Amino acid sequence: MQLTQFTDYSLRALIFIAIKKQSCTINEISTAYGLSENHVVKIIHNLAKLGLINTTRGKNGGITMAVDPADINIKAAVLKLESHFDLVPCFNKEKQNCIIAPVCILKHVLHDARKAFFDVLEKYTLADMIKNQTELKPLLQI
Amino acid sequence: MQLTQFTDYSLRALIFIAIKKQSCTINEISTAYGLSENHVVKIIHNLAKLGLINTTRGKNGGITMAVDPADINIKAAVLKLESHFDLVPCFNKEKQNCIIAPVCILKHVLHDARKAFFDVLEKYTLADMIKNQTELKPLLQI
Repeated sequence: MQLTQFTDYSLRALIFIAIKKQSCTINEISTAYGLSENHVVKIIHNLAKLGLINTTRGKNGGITMAVDPADINIKAAVLKLESHFDLVPCFNKEKQNCIIAPVCILKHVLHDARKAFFDVLEKYTLADMIKNQTELKPLLQI
Repeated sequence: MQLTQFTDYSLRALIFIAIKKQSCTINEISTAYGLSENHVVKIIHNLAKLGLINTTRGKNGGITMAVDPADINIKAAVLKLESHFDLVPCFNKEKQNCIIAPVCILKHVLHDARKAFFDVLEKYTLADMIKNQTELKPLLQI
């Protein structure tokens, strides 16, 4: 059970951009975390598509937050970034292939567990993740 | 974010074996759930290795529970079945590759969320999963 690399990298990029405040570049993010620029390009494209960041081209262009970090809930962000949260196939009616699904107690228990997972994430925003930015900045070369 | 197919099938097999009570076969389990026998063979081998079921060969052989379903905790079972629960690479010191890991707040939040997930599973045993076996039996052709 794990989050996709795409979600992991996206959250890290959001942390960088939110701390940086000023406009930053794909190169700065990839260098700070030691990630390939190709990966970061895809992540930035998607974060922009989701309306979380702004990207502007040109000499004075770059990446900035489009939304106040205090308004980016971690549960909501993870739900947008992760392709699905079907712990088991029966969570998705279209993929459901288990004969006992209609009466399965385990399915409900796993649903409750998933809810408990998200209830924790829901308590935090991106602003909470960068509260210790004086510690984070030197590590990120900001 | 999902459990492996291996964990999913293993839990389903345990539900079948626990309800059946009498000795059952790989063919019965694979037929009941519509799973390939090859998959079920691997699952049964692993469940036996974990000491959760007994398998005996021969004419009167078959599969039975080795442990009372009331003594099989769902959290413990899932932890044994799933290869890892590293939601992000920094959960594992050997795979850890993120520069901010030492001071990362997100890492702690994800840890708390994972704990909340397992706290729910810990409240249940395999016996709880088969409480409605009068409903489950006909679906499983038992």
